[in-house]
Amino acid sequence: MPKSNSSRRGGDKIYLDYAASVSANPSSIHRLGVEAKNKLQNARQKVADVLNSRTEEIIFTSGGTESNNLAIQGAVLATEKLTPHIITTNIEHPSVLETCRLLQKRKLAQVSVVPVEASGIVDSKKIKKAIRSNTVLISVMYANNEIGTIQPIREIAKEIRHYNKINSKKIFFHTDAVQAVNYLDLNVEKLGVDLLSLSGSKIERAGRVGVLYKKKTVKLTNLFGGGDQEVGLRPGTENLSEIIKFASAFEQVQKNKEKESKRLEKLRNYFINSLIRANKGITINGDLEKRLPNNINITIPKIPSDLLVIELSARGIMVSSKSACKSSKAGGSYVIQALHPELDSEIGGLRFSFGQRTTKKEVDCTIKALSEILTKLKKWYTPTPISNLK
Amino acid sequence: MPKSNSSRRGGDKIYLDYAASVSANPSSIHRLGVEAKNKLQNARQKVADVLNSRTEEIIFTSGGTESNNLAIQGAVLATEKLTPHIITTNIEHPSVLETCRLLQKRKLAQVSVVPVEASGIVDSKKIKKAIRSNTVLISVMYANNEIGTIQPIREIAKEIRHYNKINSKKIFFHTDAVQAVNYLDLNVEKLGVDLLSLSGSKIERAGRVGVLYKKKTVKLTNLFGGGDQEVGLRPGTENLSEIIKFASAFEQVQKNKEKESKRLEKLRNYFINSLIRANKGITINGDLEKRLPNNINITIPKIPSDLLVIELSARGIMVSSKSACKSSKAGGSYVIQALHPELDSEIGGLRFSFGQRTTKKEVDCTIKALSEILTKLKKWYTPTPISNLK
Repeated sequence: MPKSNSSRRGGDKIYLDYAASVSANPSSIHRLGVEAKNKLQNARQKVADVLNSRTEEIIFTSGGTESNNLAIQGAVLATEKLTPHIITTNIEHPSVLETCRLLQKRKLAQVSVVPVEASGIVDSKKIKKAIRSNTVLISVMYANNEIGTIQPIREIAKEIRHYNKINSKKIFFHTDAVQAVNYLDLNVEKLGVDLLSLSGSKIERAGRVGVLYKKKTVKLTNLFGGGDQEVGLRPGTENLSEIIKFASAFEQVQKNKEKESKRLEKLRNYFINSLIRANKGITINGDLEKRLPNNINITIPKIPSDLLVIELSARGIMVSSKSACKSSKAGGSYVIQALHPELDSEIGGLRFSFGQRTTKKEVDCTIKALSEILTKLKKWYTPTPISNLK
Repeated sequence: MPKSNSSRRGGDKIYLDYAASVSANPSSIHRLGVEAKNKLQNARQKVADVLNSRTEEIIFTSGGTESNNLAIQGAVLATEKLTPHIITTNIEHPSVLETCRLLQKRKLAQVSVVPVEASGIVDSKKIKKAIRSNTVLISVMYANNEIGTIQPIREIAKEIRHYNKINSKKIFFHTDAVQAVNYLDLNVEKLGVDLLSLSGSKIERAGRVGVLYKKKTVKLTNLFGGGDQEVGLRPGTENLSEIIKFASAFEQVQKNKEKESKRLEKLRNYFINSLIRANKGITINGDLEKRLPNNINITIPKIPSDLLVIELSARGIMVSSKSACKSSKAGGSYVIQALHPELDSEIGGLRFSFGQRTTKKEVDCTIKALSEILTKLKKWYTPTPISNLK
C-alpha cells in the first residue's frame, strides 16, 4: 500500500531503532543504516579528494584537539620502542605541546622541543639535527594559530624522508593543519606528510568535527575503548550530520582558496601598512612573507595585549591576545615569548584574524579605533621600537 | 554612529577573531567570547538542574563513548595506586568493556567482570563481593542498550557507600546512563553515583555531544593534552551550538518523561503480548519488569537475528540485532550470550526500540511483517521453547 504509507513520517519506513540513535546510525545493518553509511562514505570521499588521499586514510574525530592527540598519543602507543622520542617546536598549538608534555610526564615518550627562529619559522636543519635513534614522530604545525607563520613542511618532510632512507628508519611526520585549511595547499602527497589534522571550527559553515589523515603505512593505536567505527581508531557513533556539513564546506573552501587568499592578503597588507605608518613603535610578530593571508599579530611596547583586546571589544571589535585554548591561564602568549624573549610576558601580542566576512570598511574602523585607544593610553605608551626594549 | 552601524552584519560588531573560531569561542575574552561563555554556562546549568548537581560537576564531551572513557581511564590514571582494580559487568556497552580491557592490556589496571543473572540484571551482592583492597572504580550501566534491563544502581551505590565507610576507602561508582536518559530518574544524589555518562545521540532533537557528571570529590586525569576547557578535563573548543541544543532537548525530555514512559510501556506490552500469542517459541530476553519502556528484545530459536533484521529492513522496518558499535564484527551479541550461553551465538537477539515517533499503527505493521517473515522462514523454524534448546 505505497499510497497510504507515503503520508507516514519518514516515507514508507518504520524506525524502531531508537536505542542505536534517534537518527540512523551508519553502523546499523538495516536500510537506513546503509544509507547513512553511504552518506558517511561520500563525505569521506570529498575530504580524501581534497587531500589527495585514499578514503580509508580519513578518520573523523570530534575536532582538532582530538586529531592532534590521536596522531601523537596514537603513534607513541603503537610503537614497540621502549622510550619513543618525539620532536616538535616551541610554538605548536597546546593540543600538540601539552600532549607531548603529558606523554613525557607519564614516561611514555621523550620529547625534544626545537625553538623557532625570531621570524617564527623553524629551521628544517635544526629539526633534522634533533633526530635520535629512537625518534618515532616529528610534529610541526603547518601554520601558527597566533602569528600565522607558515612552516617549511615540504622541506622538513624531505629531510625526514632522506634520513629514513639512509638509516632504514620509519619516522612519521605529522602536521597540524588546522589554521592552514582555508588558504594553503593540503595535498598530502605534495606536502610529504604521514599525518595531518584538520578542524571544522575554522571553516565557515563547516560541521564541528575534526579529521585526521593517516597514511596507510602509519601504525596508530586507538585512544578510546569502544566500537569499531573509523577503522577502530575512533570508537563512538559518527556525528554524521556534522561530518556531511564539514565535507561540503571543506570542499567549497578549496574552490575559493586562491581568490580569497589574494583578497585577504591585500586587506592584510593594507592594514599592516596603515598600522606601521600610524604607530612607529609597533612590531609585527612573525615573518611578513611566509604568513597566512588572514593574520596580523602586533606588539605595542609597554601595553599589555589583554588590555587592548578589552578596549577594542568595548568598541565592538573582536580580536585576541593569545590562543583562546589557554585564555584561562595568567601570563602572556608563549608564542610571542618564543619570538621576543626580551619582552615582558604580560605584553604579548595582539592578533587580528580575518575571514570570509571581513571587509575594508571593518579594517578602516579597526585602524581608527586602535589609534584612538593608543592615544587614550599614551600615558603608558612610548613609541620605542621593540629592539630597544629591556 | 549606532544607526549606520546597525546595518552591518553581526549588528555593531566587527569580528576579527576567525583564527579562534569562525563563530565566537567561549574562551575568547572579548564581548562575543563572554556572550558565548554565558550561553555555555546556561546550558551547563540546565544539565546540572536535571541531574541535581553543581554546574562545575558537568563536563561536556564529544559523546557517550568519550564520557565513558574519560570516567574510566581518567579515574585509573588519577589514582596513585600501583595496580588499580576496576569492577564492571559482562553486559556493559563496548565503550566501557573495551576500555577496561584496554587498560588491562596496557597493564594500567586489573579488571573483574561480574556476570549478570539470567534476567540480565546484576546482583548487587556479587558486585560487593568482587571488591578488593585496590579497587578504585565500579562501573555498572543504568540500563542496557540491547535488552533494556535496568540495573539496581541505588542498591549497588548503597553497598559501595557501606564498604567505603567501614573500610575508610574511596571507591568511586560510575554509571553509563546513555540508554536511561529518556525514561529513568537521573538525580545523581538519589542514585548515589559519583560519575554518570550521557549522550545526545539518544535524545530527540539533542545536539551531538556527551556529558560526564563528575562529583566534586572525584579525581580524574584528562585524556587529551591541550587547552583548559571543561576544567582542564576536556581540552578543545567547546561545541557550543550542539551543547545548547543538547541542554534544551535534555531539559524538555525530562518534562515528558513520565507520560512518554507510560505511553511506550503500554505499546511495548501490547507488542510483547501479541508476539507471545502469535509465536509460542519466542523468548523475550531480559527481565520483563525491570526494563526500559521502549525496549523489546526477542530470540527466535534457530533463526539468526541478522537475517531477521535484513528481512524486516526489506519491508521498511528498521530494527537491530546487536550494538551498532560492534556491527562490523562477526558473531552474535555478547549480551544475549551472557543471558543464554546455551544458544548458538549466531542466533542472537532481535531488538525493537521505540521512541517519540513510534505509533500503534507502526507496531501493528511490525507484528504483521514479522509474522509473515517467520511463516516464510518456517523451514528452519520450529517453535521450540528456548529452555529446551541445546
